Amino acid sequence: MRYADNKAEGIKIAYIGGGSRGWAWGLMSDLAACDDMSGEVWLYDIDTDAARKNEIIGNKFNFAKGAKSAWSYRAVKEIGEALTGCDVVVISILPGTFDEMESDVHTPEKYGIYQSVGDTTGPGGIIRAMRTVPMFEEFALNIKKYCPDAWVINYTNPMALCVKSLYRVFPEIKAFGCCHEVFGTQKFLAEMVKEVFREENVERHEIKVNPVGVNHFTWLTSAAYRNVDLFPYYKEFCVKYKDGYTNGKPVDTNWMNGAFATSEKVKIDLFNRFGYIAAAGDRHLAEFCEGKWYLESPERVKEMKFALTSVQSRKEELKLRLAKSERLASGEEEPAINKTGEEGINQIRALMGLSELVTNVNIPNRGQIPNLPLGAVVETNAYFCANSLTPVFAGPIPKTIYPLISRVCSEQEAVSEGIAQRDVNKIFAAFANDPLVICTIGDAKKLFDEMCKNTAKYLKMYEF
Amino acid sequence: MRYADNKAEGIKIAYIGGGSRGWAWGLMSDLAACDDMSGEVWLYDIDTDAARKNEIIGNKFNFAKGAKSAWSYRAVKEIGEALTGCDVVVISILPGTFDEMESDVHTPEKYGIYQSVGDTTGPGGIIRAMRTVPMFEEFALNIKKYCPDAWVINYTNPMALCVKSLYRVFPEIKAFGCCHEVFGTQKFLAEMVKEVFREENVERHEIKVNPVGVNHFTWLTSAAYRNVDLFPYYKEFCVKYKDGYTNGKPVDTNWMNGAFATSEKVKIDLFNRFGYIAAAGDRHLAEFCEGKWYLESPERVKEMKFALTSVQSRKEELKLRLAKSERLASGEEEPAINKTGEEGINQIRALMGLSELVTNVNIPNRGQIPNLPLGAVVETNAYFCANSLTPVFAGPIPKTIYPLISRVCSEQEAVSEGIAQRDVNKIFAAFANDPLVICTIGDAKKLFDEMCKNTAKYLKMYEF
Amino acid sequence: MRYADNKAEGIKIAYIGGGSRGWAWGLMSDLAACDDMSGEVWLYDIDTDAARKNEIIGNKFNFAKGAKSAWSYRAVKEIGEALTGCDVVVISILPGTFDEMESDVHTPEKYGIYQSVGDTTGPGGIIRAMRTVPMFEEFALNIKKYCPDAWVINYTNPMALCVKSLYRVFPEIKAFGCCHEVFGTQKFLAEMVKEVFREENVERHEIKVNPVGVNHFTWLTSAAYRNVDLFPYYKEFCVKYKDGYTNGKPVDTNWMNGAFATSEKVKIDLFNRFGYIAAAGDRHLAEFCEGKWYLESPERVKEMKFALTSVQSRKEELKLRLAKSERLASGEEEPAINKTGEEGINQIRALMGLSELVTNVNIPNRGQIPNLPLGAVVETNAYFCANSLTPVFAGPIPKTIYPLISRVCSEQEAVSEGIAQRDVNKIFAAFANDPLVICTIGDAKKLFDEMCKNTAKYLKMYEF
Amino acid sequence: MRYADNKAEGIKIAYIGGGSRGWAWGLMSDLAACDDMSGEVWLYDIDTDAARKNEIIGNKFNFAKGAKSAWSYRAVKEIGEALTGCDVVVISILPGTFDEMESDVHTPEKYGIYQSVGDTTGPGGIIRAMRTVPMFEEFALNIKKYCPDAWVINYTNPMALCVKSLYRVFPEIKAFGCCHEVFGTQKFLAEMVKEVFREENVERHEIKVNPVGVNHFTWLTSAAYRNVDLFPYYKEFCVKYKDGYTNGKPVDTNWMNGAFATSEKVKIDLFNRFGYIAAAGDRHLAEFCEGKWYLESPERVKEMKFALTSVQSRKEELKLRLAKSERLASGEEEPAINKTGEEGINQIRALMGLSELVTNVNIPNRGQIPNLPLGAVVETNAYFCANSLTPVFAGPIPKTIYPLISRVCSEQEAVSEGIAQRDVNKIFAAFANDPLVICTIGDAKKLFDEMCKNTAKYLKMYEF
Repeated sequence: MRYADNKAEGIKIAYIGGGSRGWAWGLMSDLAACDDMSGEVWLYDIDTDAARKNEIIGNKFNFAKGAKSAWSYRAVKEIGEALTGCDVVVISILPGTFDEMESDVHTPEKYGIYQSVGDTTGPGGIIRAMRTVPMFEEFALNIKKYCPDAWVINYTNPMALCVKSLYRVFPEIKAFGCCHEVFGTQKFLAEMVKEVFREENVERHEIKVNPVGVNHFTWLTSAAYRNVDLFPYYKEFCVKYKDGYTNGKPVDTNWMNGAFATSEKVKIDLFNRFGYIAAAGDRHLAEFCEGKWYLESPERVKEMKFALTSVQSRKEELKLRLAKSERLASGEEEPAINKTGEEGINQIRALMGLSELVTNVNIPNRGQIPNLPLGAVVETNAYFCANSLTPVFAGPIPKTIYPLISRVCSEQEAVSEGIAQRDVNKIFAAFANDPLVICTIGDAKKLFDEMCKNTAKYLKMYEF
Repeated sequence: MRYADNKAEGIKIAYIGGGSRGWAWGLMSDLAACDDMSGEVWLYDIDTDAARKNEIIGNKFNFAKGAKSAWSYRAVKEIGEALTGCDVVVISILPGTFDEMESDVHTPEKYGIYQSVGDTTGPGGIIRAMRTVPMFEEFALNIKKYCPDAWVINYTNPMALCVKSLYRVFPEIKAFGCCHEVFGTQKFLAEMVKEVFREENVERHEIKVNPVGVNHFTWLTSAAYRNVDLFPYYKEFCVKYKDGYTNGKPVDTNWMNGAFATSEKVKIDLFNRFGYIAAAGDRHLAEFCEGKWYLESPERVKEMKFALTSVQSRKEELKLRLAKSERLASGEEEPAINKTGEEGINQIRALMGLSELVTNVNIPNRGQIPNLPLGAVVETNAYFCANSLTPVFAGPIPKTIYPLISRVCSEQEAVSEGIAQRDVNKIFAAFANDPLVICTIGDAKKLFDEMCKNTAKYLKMYEF
Repeated sequence: MRYADNKAEGIKIAYIGGGSRGWAWGLMSDLAACDDMSGEVWLYDIDTDAARKNEIIGNKFNFAKGAKSAWSYRAVKEIGEALTGCDVVVISILPGTFDEMESDVHTPEKYGIYQSVGDTTGPGGIIRAMRTVPMFEEFALNIKKYCPDAWVINYTNPMALCVKSLYRVFPEIKAFGCCHEVFGTQKFLAEMVKEVFREENVERHEIKVNPVGVNHFTWLTSAAYRNVDLFPYYKEFCVKYKDGYTNGKPVDTNWMNGAFATSEKVKIDLFNRFGYIAAAGDRHLAEFCEGKWYLESPERVKEMKFALTSVQSRKEELKLRLAKSERLASGEEEPAINKTGEEGINQIRALMGLSELVTNVNIPNRGQIPNLPLGAVVETNAYFCANSLTPVFAGPIPKTIYPLISRVCSEQEAVSEGIAQRDVNKIFAAFANDPLVICTIGDAKKLFDEMCKNTAKYLKMYEF
Repeated sequence: MRYADNKAEGIKIAYIGGGSRGWAWGLMSDLAACDDMSGEVWLYDIDTDAARKNEIIGNKFNFAKGAKSAWSYRAVKEIGEALTGCDVVVISILPGTFDEMESDVHTPEKYGIYQSVGDTTGPGGIIRAMRTVPMFEEFALNIKKYCPDAWVINYTNPMALCVKSLYRVFPEIKAFGCCHEVFGTQKFLAEMVKEVFREENVERHEIKVNPVGVNHFTWLTSAAYRNVDLFPYYKEFCVKYKDGYTNGKPVDTNWMNGAFATSEKVKIDLFNRFGYIAAAGDRHLAEFCEGKWYLESPERVKEMKFALTSVQSRKEELKLRLAKSERLASGEEEPAINKTGEEGINQIRALMGLSELVTNVNIPNRGQIPNLPLGAVVETNAYFCANSLTPVFAGPIPKTIYPLISRVCSEQEAVSEGIAQRDVNKIFAAFANDPLVICTIGDAKKLFDEMCKNTAKYLKMYEF
C-alpha cells in the first residue's frame, strides 16, 4: 500500500468466503464507489467456482456507472495465497450448508423452542458456534502465518464467538466484527426525530449513540440528536406506539411484507419494561430474552409483529441470488453501484489513514464495559484512525438491563471455553441454561444430542 | 465490655426480633455454653409479649445444666433502648406474618411456578424483599443513631438484600449475614470422606472449602480434607449416587421424613452438569436454577427427592414452638443446652478479640469475587479477629458456573435498586427475568400484581 | 440555545475570570471566527474593571475583519448572574496575584529547588493548589446551583487538581480541562514528519496520538501519520537530535529567544531513556522528573536548552498586555481575528451538536487508564459529540513509564485529599515526597511553612 | 507423604541453598521441635561441601534435647535429585558472593548514596536482582519439571522480584515468600501494649494486623490487640518517643549494640508524617524513602539511630558461623533446639493439612490490594490451610501512603520486565528513578555501569 495524492493505492484485500452472493457484491459496490482507495481483492472460498464467478463480477464493477476507483479481483485456491501480504482480511462465510442451518433453526421447534434467526444465540447459535469456531481457529493461524499485521473484519455469525476465537488463537490479531444492527436502530430513531421534531432528512449518522452489550443484543445507554437527549422523546414514543410502529402504513400489511421487516414492537416493549433502548432488529432481540417472552409460539411472534425466518425462505432467496450471480457473470445484468450503508469501507479508509471515524464494533473487552468480563467480545463504539482501533469507554451497563446482558455475555464465555477445550459437557451446561431453552433439562439434553447428530459432519473435532 | 482473666465481660447484645421461638433459644443455648463471655441480652420485638417471654426463658438458661456463663436478659419496647451502647446487634425477624408468606410461596403455583422455600429468590423472595428491605432501612438508621460501632449479625432472609440495604443506608455499618447452608455441605462432604477414606469422626470443620456466590446459591471452587483435594473423589461419588445419597438408609423413607431432609440429588446433579460443588440445601439450590430444571412440578420435586415447604407446615410447626415457649416460660420444661453448630458465638468471640476464625459470611463485595459487581452482597470466607472482619480473596467464579451465579447476583442488584428507588417497574423488570418465572411476561405481570396486592399491608411505601 | 439553519443560536457562555488579558481575547477571536454559533458571553471577574474592559473589547470583535458571527458580551458583578441559564462555563483565573506566584516559584530556590513553571506540580504547584482548590469548590457549588447542566471548561492550573475539585464537590458536573501541551508535541511530530518523509504542510491534526498520563506530564503510547507508526522514526530522530532540535536554526540563539521556546531536548532525552514520547513542553516535563535530572541548577537548565520562567518576566509581560487592553478598549488598536489553534471552540461546537471530535482532555478516570486510580483526573483522548463527552479507552500505561506517571498521579490524589480535608499534615506528606523536593525532610518542612506563610492571605481555611 | 495418627509422615523437603549456615539450622531446629511432622530434607547447594556438612548437622538434630520428630537429611549434587517427588521446596540462597554484595552496598557511596542493607531495593537491590532473577528462572524450570505440585517457600532477597520470577516462568507454581519483618513490628506493638496497658506477656501473635505493601516496605492499615484499635495509642506513643524507643535502656548504648538493633525512630517518624504504621525494620524502611530523608549521610543515619550494615561486618559474622558449622559437624558443639519464631514450620503444617493459619506472605497480587498492579508481588495476610494458600483481601492502600508504596511497586514491575527481557536500558530507566538515586542522571548512569561491571561475572546473560 502506498500514498499518492492523498489516496491510498495498491491496497490488498483478502476475502475469505469470497464466493458469497450478497456481502461480496455489496463490498464490490462500496469499493468501486470510493474515490480515494484502489488495489486488489483476492477471493478465497471453499467453493472455488463461486469465487471465480465473483472474480468476473468484481472486475466488471470497475466499469459500472459511478465507479470511481479500480480494483482488480482474483480468485485463488489456497488461503495462503489470498492472505500473503494483504492489508485487510474480510471474513464472511457460511459455516456448513443450509442443511445444517435447517437443523439449527428448526430442530428445537420439536421441543417448543422457536428461533427467529438461530445463528447467534440460543440452541441454533450454540451449535453453529461449535462448527464455526474451529474454522476461525484455522483462519487465525493462517493470518498469524501469512499476514499478522493485516486488519481483519469479520461479518460471520455467531459474531462474538467468531471474533473471540480469532483473539484466542492469535492474541495480537487486529480483528473486529462489523454489524449493521445498531445502524437500523439509529435509522429508527431518525424516523422518530422526523416525526417528533417535524424535521425532514435526518440521517442515521446524526443520531449519536452509546451502545453497550454483545452483538445482536446491544443496548443504547444514551442517544442524542444534535445536543438533544432523545430518551424523554423515545419514552413518549414507546407509549404511543406500544402496539408497534409501522411508519404510517397500515400495520397488518407492513410488517409481514417480508421476514426481515418488523414493527419494532419487541424493541418498544423492551424499552417500556427496562427503560433503555435495545438496538438490534426485533428478530435478534427476541432470541436473547426468556423464551416465553416473545418466542413462545408462532402466535406470540405474530402478536409481537415480527417474523420467524425459515430456512426454507433462505433457500429460496439463495436461488434468486444464484440466478443473479449467473446474470452478473455472463453480462446479462450490469452490476449497479448502490451504497450499502455499511461502515466497512469507512472503517478501512480510516485504518488506512485517510480519515477518522467513531462507530460501533465488536472487539474483546479491555475495560470499555467495566462490568462485563475482560476478554469477552463486546459491542461498543470505537475510534478508527491511522492504523489504529481504540474502544471508546462505554461505561458500566445500567443495573436494570445488566441481568439480561451479563447473562448472555457470560453464556458466550462459557460456550467459548467449552469449544476451545472441545468439552461437550461444558458446552451443554451453557446450552441448557440459555434463555430460549425453556424445556426440562432432560429434554434439553435430547435436543442438544439431536442437533449435534444432525450436524455431525462438521463436528468431528468433538468427542461425544 | 471489658477484659478480665482472658474473658470478655459486660458484653451487651441487642436482639432485634427477640421474640423469636427458635433462633433466639439457640443463641441463648450457645451463649450459656460459652465460657469466656458474659453480659446482657436486650430483646426487642414488635411482639412485646414474645420478647418478654423470652426474657424469662433466657434468664432461666443461666441455671441450665452445662451453663458456663451468666447472661442477663431484658425485653424492651423501644428499639433505641435495646441498641444504645450495645456491642453486638443480632437481627432475626419474620417480616410480615405467615399470611404474607403464604402468598409469597403459594400464589405463584397458580401460574405453574413452584417454590421450595420462597424466602430468598424467585417471586416469593422478591416480594418478601419488598416488605423486608424498608424495615432494614429503619434498622440501619437506628444502628447509625444508637450504636454505630456495634457489630451487626443478620439471620433474616432474603439475606443478601437485607445486608445490602443495611450498607446502602449506613455505609460504615459493621454488618454481616450468617447462614448455615455451607456448613450442611461441609457435613455432606464429611460423610463422603468417611465413606471413601473409611475414616470415622470427620467433623465439618475439617472440610476446608472456598465458597463463592450469593447466599443460598453458594458454590465451592475448592474443597479439601487434610491436604487432599476432594474434587476427584466427589466426582466419583456423584456418579455413584446420581439417584441421591441417603446414607445407607432406604431412599423412600429417608428423604420424606420431613420437609428439610434431602437426598442431595439436586446438588449431585448440579455437580454432574457443571463440575463444581453447589453448597446449599437442595431446596434452596433448586430455586436459583431455571424453573423447568428441578421445580417444574410437584412430581419433578418428588423425582429429585427434595420437598416443597408448605406454609401450612410452617404454621403447624409454629404451634409446637408456641407451646414449647409456654412450657419453657412457665418452668414446665427445663431449657437444655445443646450446641447448635452455628458459628454466631464463635464469630462474636473472634470479634471481641478472644480468638480468630475463618468462616463464610455474607458481606458486600469489595473485590473478594472480582467478577461479581462491587457492592453486591456475596458469600465467601472471611477472617474474623480482633474487632475486624476481612474477606478472604475468593477469586473469580469459574466460567462454567458464572452464568448461573452472575445472573442471580445481578438480579439482586436490580431488585435492590428498584426497592431503594421504590420503583415498582424496575422491580418487576427483575421479577420477570427471574429463573423461576417461566410463564409469559403477561402472566408474570399478573402474578406480580396479585402478590403485591396480597401483601399490600406491608407495601405502603410503593406507588402502584 | 436553539437551532436554525444548521446553526446554534443564542448560546450563553459564562466566563469566570472574564477579565483575563490573554485567554479571553483568544476566545473572543475564535468565537468571532466561528460561522455556525452565536450568542452571549457573560464575563465575571473579581476584578470588575477588567471584566468591563473586556466587555467593550469583546463587543468590538463583532466588527473585526473576518468576524463571521455575532456575540454579545456583558460584564457582571455577581457570579450567579453570569451562570444562570448558561450552556457553557469557561474558567480561566489567576488564583492570587503575581506576588503569590513569586513565592511559589522562587522561594524553593533558597533550598536548591528550581522550577521552570511552578504552577502545576512541585512546591509551587502544591501551594498554588492549596489556594486555588477552595475557589473551585465555590465555583462548583455555584454551578450546581445556577447551571447544573452546563458544560464547564477549565483552563486554570493546576489543571488536574482544579478539575478534580469540581467533581468532588458536584459529582454530576459536566466539566473537563483543556490544555494545548499535547498539541505542541503533535506539531513537533509534524515537523519530524516533514523532515523525515520530505512532506510539506503536515498539520498537527494529521498526527494521530494516544495520550496517557496527567496534565503536563502526558505521554504518547502511539503516534501515527496516515497509517504509519511514527515510533521507529522518532527513535532515529531522537538519536540524531540528542542535543536538541532547533529546526535548522543555530542552537545558541533559538532556544533562548524567549522563556517559552525550547529545543525539545528534555523530551528527546526522555524518549532515549524510556522509549515513549513525552507530550508536553520541556518546561513542564522537567518539573515532574526527579529534581536532579533536569532542574538541578540554572546551569543544568541551560545545558538542557530550556528556560526557567521568572515571575519577573511574567510581570513585565502583564504590563504589555495591560497596555494592549487599554488600546483595544479605547479603539486605538483594532481587535484582530487570529485562530488560536486551541480546541475550545471545536469542543463547544461538538457539544452543541454541530460536529464530532476526538481530542485530548482532562477528566476523572473512569477506567480509561486502567492502572491509574479511578477518580484521579487524567489526560486521554475523548469523544465529543451531541451533548456528550466520553473518554476513549487509552489502555494501561506501559511498565517502563508507569513509575514516573503513577507517582505524580498518586501525589495529586494525596494532595487532593489533604486539601479537601484541610489537613496540612497530609498535604505536607505529599509535598515532601514530590520529585522536585530533593532537600532533606527537615528543610522540606521549613520550605513548606515559609511558602504557606508567604501566601497566608489565601490560606485562611487551613489551620497551621 | 501420608497421615497416621493425626501426624504427617514421610514429608519430603528440598532445600535449595542447603549449605546455608544460618537459615538452614533454624529450619532444622524448628523441624525437630515439631511433633506432628516427620520426613526427609534433601539439601542442594552449589557449595556441595557446605550442603554435606549440613547433612551431618541436620541428622544430629534428631538427637538434640527437645527433638520431637525425626528428619533424615541428605545432601545431593543435582538439583533434580533434591526436587523429585518433594512436597515442599525451600529456597534460601546467597546470589553471588560477598564480593558482589560489597559492590552492591558500597559502590553507590562514592556518589553519595548510602544503603543500610542494599539487598532489596535501591542500586544494590536492583543489581542483585539482575543476577538473582536468572537463577530463580532456573529454579522455576526445575520445579516445573521435577515437582510441579510442591509448595515453594522463598527466603531469598530481593524477595518480591525472586517470587515474581518464579511465577513468570511457571505460572502454576505454588510459591510464596516468607519474611519476618512484619513480626518485628508486631513485637514492637506488643511492647507498646505492655507499656500502655500495663500488661505482661503480650505475644506478637496477639497483635492482629492488616499489612499492605511490598516486602520490606509493608505498612499496617489496622492493628488491634484483643478488640482494641491500637492506632490512637500508637499516635500518642509516637509523639512521646519521637526521638526513638529504646525500651527503658539508655538510648546511647542500646541501638548501637549491633547493626540490627534499632530505636524504631524511622518507623516512628514515618507514622508522625503519614499516619500509618510502617512495618519493617528501620534499616529496610529507610531504603524505600527519598534518599535525603534518612540515608543522606552516615551522620543522618546516626541521628535517626539506626545503622548501615557494612559488608565487612557480614564477612566477619560469616567467619563465626563457619566456625560454628565446624563445631556442629564435628560434634564439638551440640545442636540446640530454639524456636526461631519464624512462621515457616507453621505454614508447612497448615499446608500439609495439620492446622490452619493466617499470616503475612509475599505472593502475586490477584486483587488483594486493588490499587497495586495485578501480578506484582505484594505482602498481605493470607490464609493457609489444607493444601491451599489464599490471600486475605487487604483492601486499597490509603491515599496518604499510596505515593510511597505504589512508586516502589511500580519500580519493581519495571525492573522485572527489564530483567525478563534482558533489556539493560529498561533496567537503568528504573534504576535512575529509584528513591535512593539522588544523584544526577549522568552520575546515575556511571554508577549503574560501574556496579554492573563489578558484578559482571554474574551478568553474562545481559548485553551491555
